[in-house]
Amino acid sequence: MKKTQDFIQNNQQRFLDELFELLRIPSVSADPAHNGDVRKGAELVAQHLTEAGADKVEVCDTAGHPIVYGEKIIDPSLPTVLVYGHYDVQPADPIELWDSPAFEPVIKKTDIHPDGAIFARGACDDKGQVFMHIKAFEAMSKSGELPCNVKFMIEGEEEVGSENLGVFIKEHTERLAADIILVSDTGIISNDNPSITTGLRGLSYVEVEVTGPNRDLHSGLYGGAVANPINVLSDMISQLQDDKHKITIPGFYDKVEVISEEERAEMAKAPYDEEEYKSSIDIKNVQGEEGYSTRERASIRPTLDVNGIWGGYIGEGAKTVLPSKAFAKISMRLVPHQEPEEITAQFKDYFESIAPDSVTVKVNPHHGGLPAVTPIDSDGYMAASNAMEKTFGKKPVPLRSGGSIPIVALFEQVLGLKTVLMGFGLNSDAIHSPNEHYGLFNFYKGIETIPYFFEEFTKLSQK
Amino acid sequence: MKKTQDFIQNNQQRFLDELFELLRIPSVSADPAHNGDVRKGAELVAQHLTEAGADKVEVCDTAGHPIVYGEKIIDPSLPTVLVYGHYDVQPADPIELWDSPAFEPVIKKTDIHPDGAIFARGACDDKGQVFMHIKAFEAMSKSGELPCNVKFMIEGEEEVGSENLGVFIKEHTERLAADIILVSDTGIISNDNPSITTGLRGLSYVEVEVTGPNRDLHSGLYGGAVANPINVLSDMISQLQDDKHKITIPGFYDKVEVISEEERAEMAKAPYDEEEYKSSIDIKNVQGEEGYSTRERASIRPTLDVNGIWGGYIGEGAKTVLPSKAFAKISMRLVPHQEPEEITAQFKDYFESIAPDSVTVKVNPHHGGLPAVTPIDSDGYMAASNAMEKTFGKKPVPLRSGGSIPIVALFEQVLGLKTVLMGFGLNSDAIHSPNEHYGLFNFYKGIETIPYFFEEFTKLSQK
Repeated sequence: MKKTQDFIQNNQQRFLDELFELLRIPSVSADPAHNGDVRKGAELVAQHLTEAGADKVEVCDTAGHPIVYGEKIIDPSLPTVLVYGHYDVQPADPIELWDSPAFEPVIKKTDIHPDGAIFARGACDDKGQVFMHIKAFEAMSKSGELPCNVKFMIEGEEEVGSENLGVFIKEHTERLAADIILVSDTGIISNDNPSITTGLRGLSYVEVEVTGPNRDLHSGLYGGAVANPINVLSDMISQLQDDKHKITIPGFYDKVEVISEEERAEMAKAPYDEEEYKSSIDIKNVQGEEGYSTRERASIRPTLDVNGIWGGYIGEGAKTVLPSKAFAKISMRLVPHQEPEEITAQFKDYFESIAPDSVTVKVNPHHGGLPAVTPIDSDGYMAASNAMEKTFGKKPVPLRSGGSIPIVALFEQVLGLKTVLMGFGLNSDAIHSPNEHYGLFNFYKGIETIPYFFEEFTKLSQK
Repeated sequence: MKKTQDFIQNNQQRFLDELFELLRIPSVSADPAHNGDVRKGAELVAQHLTEAGADKVEVCDTAGHPIVYGEKIIDPSLPTVLVYGHYDVQPADPIELWDSPAFEPVIKKTDIHPDGAIFARGACDDKGQVFMHIKAFEAMSKSGELPCNVKFMIEGEEEVGSENLGVFIKEHTERLAADIILVSDTGIISNDNPSITTGLRGLSYVEVEVTGPNRDLHSGLYGGAVANPINVLSDMISQLQDDKHKITIPGFYDKVEVISEEERAEMAKAPYDEEEYKSSIDIKNVQGEEGYSTRERASIRPTLDVNGIWGGYIGEGAKTVLPSKAFAKISMRLVPHQEPEEITAQFKDYFESIAPDSVTVKVNPHHGGLPAVTPIDSDGYMAASNAMEKTFGKKPVPLRSGGSIPIVALFEQVLGLKTVLMGFGLNSDAIHSPNEHYGLFNFYKGIETIPYFFEEFTKLSQK
């Protein structure tokens, strides 16, 4: 891969400039106002795939946002790597908390990134990481060192549940035939401590609506006599967890994967400093399910979070209103063996059951996703491990992540393919938050590592 | 009052047109963006007072919104009635729930108002009722039948706590010298059942802020391990009341006025139909403090309501965020002997005490107000009772209201004056809500009744 690595070294600035162009497109999949931008994002990704040397590049329409496909088949007898990623991003709000505009990428130095980091929505999740693959592929193909076949499937709905990707892969199992799926949408422990994600949590996401009176009322004339939907919703949310921070939904824990003490002890060995963790987000104390460590709570245990709440008067000043309605967005992270549809149904039954008869409640399911665990003895995992060891000079450790990439489980069900989660982000990258960023070190380290994965995987799978 | 009543009959349409002009001004005192409109409202009120025959009319500047003053002294030896009201209004939102624009008044018929009602923000609270006084005064003075002296004090900050009115009356005790204060900012049981408000609740209004991590976090990477400010705020709100709907703030009930069984039995006699009450706001069941009736909960008992709540992602679609902050506006209605400042302090201490160490909380007091009760044996009350009996053909019943007009207690403290609450609205008028309206019947009945109050009060106070 000598020529490939030289090519990468000689084109670093151009790679960065091209990524900036992609980051300037506000491809927010959750907001219909940005539908046009999402398509622009797809078209630019397609253009880069073509320029990088991919064939049959296509912006595939779906019932929602388009999926970008491209491939390079050099020899059908060689193994094929299917690269998956997404070009859509989370909404930027609260925008007032961004130090620089979310869609005007800039390089800034930080303590963790002394060489500088790219600040922009999607810099890490996932445009920056998708772009590493496109550029690594360009380097290999332009240098004539591409060791095997490659296919790209870059979607635009990962942040809203990947529903149409599910349809797409079911309809294109032939076209997507491969030996392994390679994804960079996760992270490493730190730039000195490489790791590979071996587990992802599933997701159940619902929106709830509590309705009291048929109109907003004067809180002086009706307060105390008519149930207040905000007070009721608060009560109901509070009843979703007990004082040990266990989720109270009947049946919620029934199928939760039990992790052996040995495995927990093994996980506990990964480098971690709780004081550092707390100070990095400026909290006095952590809080979570009794009997589990902070990292266990955020990886091997299911959780419940209110992602948004609103109701009544939220403008300036004071309004003495008893509102008609209150709303909340609530999501649950699931662990292996928990079924999103089943959990959503359990939530709905329980939430409706604890509603007082002074209000009516509606539970509207958003998207869900299955949890996934990836084996650490597969050719794919070994290839990633060897590749990272080459570029980091250190063997990566396997690690369970708390995040969700619902589609991973579906890949296995529909395409019968294992997925390797070789991501290069850091928890401190503030993905989904204001000032999301991605280290230049990580961006270039990714581009450098990916070709070695191709090389290693081709070797191993031909043994 | 024959000439006066004729004058009113002959000018009904003009009175209505003039009120519409005032209703078109969005004098929302809570929103700084409307400061200019609030002043416009003050100037129009002043203009009408002058045209009605008032002297020394002045738009008095304050640290906040102006106060309109005007007077007519026909004979210093005669009694003086001080008319108080407010020309500011509540914010119109949620505007999407208005069937016609909040500041474009229209007449529409309703089941309760077969002759039609005026639909507009402020139609009842309080522009419509203030206007009744200006027009009744015009009728009396133009007909040469004004029986005593009158002073007007119409403020622009009633909906935000009347802070500067408090300063104003302290600085103008001479100028405001009178024998009684007459206010129409309350209601009657129904158009067939006149009533006079003899009690008002006080108010303590706070805004709370719960802060967890220093930035929004990815709920997958941090959820379950870091306290979620929305979940925590919900827990804390839920802890403010117990399962009997009693407020749990230590000391909250200590000074609450105890009402005798006899008095409660007396109050229970006022006409009331709970089924009608429930269906009017479309709720399956009422809910409130154990041991008290619906009307007691909304009048003689203190209450706590969340008037607004917000935090996290409240846009369309799904965002898996663990927010940095969550907020709520919370108000408590107080009954006689409860001190707003003391209650606010008790709330602050308690709210801070129940916060887990995984978050920090801030409690910011908004405005407060003292409760008030008015005697039913005074000349003022008798004058109002006789006047209403004349125009309704039925003796009004005394009634405690759940609302607050904080300034009433201050009038007594600073000016040593009792207040008569002779209002003409209905609970169904949707004040503070979308589609606020005021019956034409009520508007004209008020104009018709007020002159009789002046006549009766002059007679009684000269005995």
